[in-house]
Amino acid sequence: MNTRINDYARFVGDECIARIRGLAKDLQGTTLLHVNSTSTGGGVAEMLHRLLPLFSDLGLKTRWEVLSGTPLFFQTTKTMHNALQGKDLQLTAEMKREYEVVNRRNAERMDLTADVVMIHDPQPAPFIVYRPKKKSSWFWRCHIDLSHPNFDLWQFLLKYVKLYDISIFSSHKFVSDFGLLVAIVAPSIDPLAEKNIDLTREQIEAVYTRYEIPRDKPILLQVSRFDIFKDPLGVIEVYNRVKEQCDCRLVLAGGGATDDPEGEAFIAQVREQASCDPQIHILPPQGQTQLTDVEINALQRGAEIIIQKSLREGFALTVTEALWKKKPIVATAVGGIPRQVIDGKTGLLSDSIAGTASKILRLLHDRKLAADLGIAGYNHVRDNFLITRHLEDYLRLMTLITRR
Amino acid sequence: MNTRINDYARFVGDECIARIRGLAKDLQGTTLLHVNSTSTGGGVAEMLHRLLPLFSDLGLKTRWEVLSGTPLFFQTTKTMHNALQGKDLQLTAEMKREYEVVNRRNAERMDLTADVVMIHDPQPAPFIVYRPKKKSSWFWRCHIDLSHPNFDLWQFLLKYVKLYDISIFSSHKFVSDFGLLVAIVAPSIDPLAEKNIDLTREQIEAVYTRYEIPRDKPILLQVSRFDIFKDPLGVIEVYNRVKEQCDCRLVLAGGGATDDPEGEAFIAQVREQASCDPQIHILPPQGQTQLTDVEINALQRGAEIIIQKSLREGFALTVTEALWKKKPIVATAVGGIPRQVIDGKTGLLSDSIAGTASKILRLLHDRKLAADLGIAGYNHVRDNFLITRHLEDYLRLMTLITRR
Repeated sequence: MNTRINDYARFVGDECIARIRGLAKDLQGTTLLHVNSTSTGGGVAEMLHRLLPLFSDLGLKTRWEVLSGTPLFFQTTKTMHNALQGKDLQLTAEMKREYEVVNRRNAERMDLTADVVMIHDPQPAPFIVYRPKKKSSWFWRCHIDLSHPNFDLWQFLLKYVKLYDISIFSSHKFVSDFGLLVAIVAPSIDPLAEKNIDLTREQIEAVYTRYEIPRDKPILLQVSRFDIFKDPLGVIEVYNRVKEQCDCRLVLAGGGATDDPEGEAFIAQVREQASCDPQIHILPPQGQTQLTDVEINALQRGAEIIIQKSLREGFALTVTEALWKKKPIVATAVGGIPRQVIDGKTGLLSDSIAGTASKILRLLHDRKLAADLGIAGYNHVRDNFLITRHLEDYLRLMTLITRR
Repeated sequence: MNTRINDYARFVGDECIARIRGLAKDLQGTTLLHVNSTSTGGGVAEMLHRLLPLFSDLGLKTRWEVLSGTPLFFQTTKTMHNALQGKDLQLTAEMKREYEVVNRRNAERMDLTADVVMIHDPQPAPFIVYRPKKKSSWFWRCHIDLSHPNFDLWQFLLKYVKLYDISIFSSHKFVSDFGLLVAIVAPSIDPLAEKNIDLTREQIEAVYTRYEIPRDKPILLQVSRFDIFKDPLGVIEVYNRVKEQCDCRLVLAGGGATDDPEGEAFIAQVREQASCDPQIHILPPQGQTQLTDVEINALQRGAEIIIQKSLREGFALTVTEALWKKKPIVATAVGGIPRQVIDGKTGLLSDSIAGTASKILRLLHDRKLAADLGIAGYNHVRDNFLITRHLEDYLRLMTLITRR
C-alpha cells in the first residue's frame, strides 16, 4: 500500500523527484511529529496517511499522534469549526474548559519531542502551551476556511496560534491579521491512493451495481460529508431544476468524519428531502457508515458531471479528485475552489442554484466542452496539486524555518 | 541624532526592551544588508534611517546600499509602482531591459555578502538573481499596496519575488497567491525622530509663521507626497465643502521623493487648483524642495484635524504620525489605514468627499470626541506601531529563517 517517492516520476517527471531528494538530503534524520484529531475521515487524515510513508522513504523520522477526546470535546471543536468558518456560534465556559482540559491530558500523555512539530487545525492548537524546552520548530497547519471567522472564536484561538513559529494556510485568502510568519501550502491528492488510481470499466460498473444505481441516465454526483457547508439540500434543488429539462440521476455520496457529532442529524434531513425521488441516491445506504476509497473513486469515474456546491471550503479535495479524473465540474467559487476550477478553462463556476443548474445543462449538451474542461483540469492538478508538490513545500519550510 | 535601544524604555517599558535584547543576543555579529532605491524621501528611507542605528546598537552588523539608476530606470519603476497599485499601465520592452540592466550593474558593483539580505520594494527585486553562492537568507520586503495589482506587471515581478526565501508585507491584505513563505510586518514610526519628538508651542508657532499660515481659523492638514494616489485634489474638494459651513484653512504639505519623476507635473496641477483661494496653503512653497522633519512635525501638531484621503496606501505612516500626536483624523479605509484608524475609536473612516467633509464638520463641533479619538489613537500606536515592535519582528524573523 505504501508508496515510494520514485513511484511518482511517471506523473511529475524525474527532475521534480531529484529536486525533492535534494531538499531531503539536508534533512536526513530530522524528527517530525504530526498531531491531529482523527485518523479516519476528512481530508487531513487522508493526506497524512499518504504523506507519512513518503517522508519516511526520504529519510525523515515521522510520527503521527491522534487526539482522543470526550463527546463534549468534539461537540466543542465542531462548534469552533463552524464558527471559524463563519457561523454565529459561541463556546460556553464549560466548553472552553473541556477544550483546554482534553488538550492538556493529551499533550501530557504524548511524547512531544521532535525537531518539527506540526499541529493540524484548531482541535489540538493548545498543544503549543506544552512545547518542551528543547529547541524545535512548531508549525500550526490550518486546513479550514478562515476568510470570515466569527470574531470572538478567532480571538480565543488566536491566543494559541500566536505562540507558534509559523502558521500554514491552504490559501492566501485565509491569511488573517494575527501573526508574524505565514506559509501558503495548498493541499494535494495522491494519484497512487485508492481514491485516485485508474479503474477498469468493470470495476466502476460493479460499484454502481452494488449500490443499485442504474446507469441508464446521466449521473450528477457530489461527494462530500453531509454538512451544512457542503449544501447537499441545495444540490437536490439544482438536480430538480436540471431534471425538468434533462432526465438524470443524482448521487450524493458522503458519510461523516468521526469527529462530527452533528453529521447524523443532518444526514437524516437530507434523506428526508430525497425520499420522494427514486432517482436520488444517498450513499452510503442507511446502516453502512463509510464508502471505501475505491468506491468513491468508481463513483467519480462513472459520473457524467461532478458538482461541488459548497458554501465554505478549506480547499475542496473532492474537486481536485474530480479534476484528476478528467471530469467536467460545476462548483461554487468559495475557499480553494477558484484556484482549481478556473472558470471556462478547467471547469465552470456558479454562485446560485439557477446558475449551477443551467451550467450543468450546458455541459450535458456540449460534450466537446465537457471533455476539454476535463483534460485541462487534469493538467492543472498534475502541475499544482499532487502530493509531490505538497511534500516539496513541507521540506522547503523545514529547511527554511529553524529555531536557533 | 542616533538613538539607542534603551532610550525607548520610557515609551514601551523595560520588559519590551529586555525581550528585544534577548532576541538580539542570539544574533550577535550577524551581518544584515538593506538595499532600496532612495536614501531620502518616502517612508522606506525614513524607517531605514531610524532602524539601522538600533540594529547596530544591538550588536548586528548592518549596511545599507542604495540603487543608482537612469531617468528611464526611475520612470520604469514609477510605472511599475503605479501598475502594481492598480493602474492600467504596461512596461515597454525597452523599459524591461533598462530595469534588468540597471539592476545587474548595481548588483555587480555592490558587495552582496551578508547573513541576511533585505531587498526593499520592486525597484531592486532582480538583485536575487545575483545572490552569492554562500549561504544566506534573502528577504523581499514589500512596502506597497498589492491588493489590486495589474496582472501582467505582477507576473513580471513574480519571476523575481518567487526566488526569495520569504516575502514580507505590511498587511495581510497584500498577501497574494504566489509563494511559499510570507511574513506580515507592519511599518512603524520612531517617537525619537525629529518627525515625532515633542515640540513647544513656540516651535510650532514659528513654523506656521515661517510659511505665512495664520492660525486664525481651524487648520485642516494632509501631509503626503503630491501623488495621484494621495488624492490632494479630492482633499481640496473636501475643504471647499467644509468651508461652506465652517470657515477654516487647508494645508497640503508634500514634496516628491527623489525617485518620482511624475511628481513635478502633478504638483503644478495641485497648485493651479488651489491658486484661487488664499486659505489653501501648498507646502513647500514653489522653489523649495523639501520640508524638514521638524517642520512637518510642527504642522501636524498645530493642525486641528488631519486628513488622509488616499486612494491606495501601503500603510500610511503619515496616519501613524498624526495619531501619535493625539490628533483627530478622518481617513479613507485603504491599505493599512483601517488597522490604524479604527472607526469611531481611534479616528473616523470615510470613503467619499461628502462623507469626509461631514465627518470633519462633526469633529470641528464635538471637541470632546476629537480629543478622545486623539488619545485612543496615541495608545493604539504605542502598542502596535512604534519602531521597537518593528525591530522585534525583524529580529524574530532573522532568528526563525535560516538556510541550512
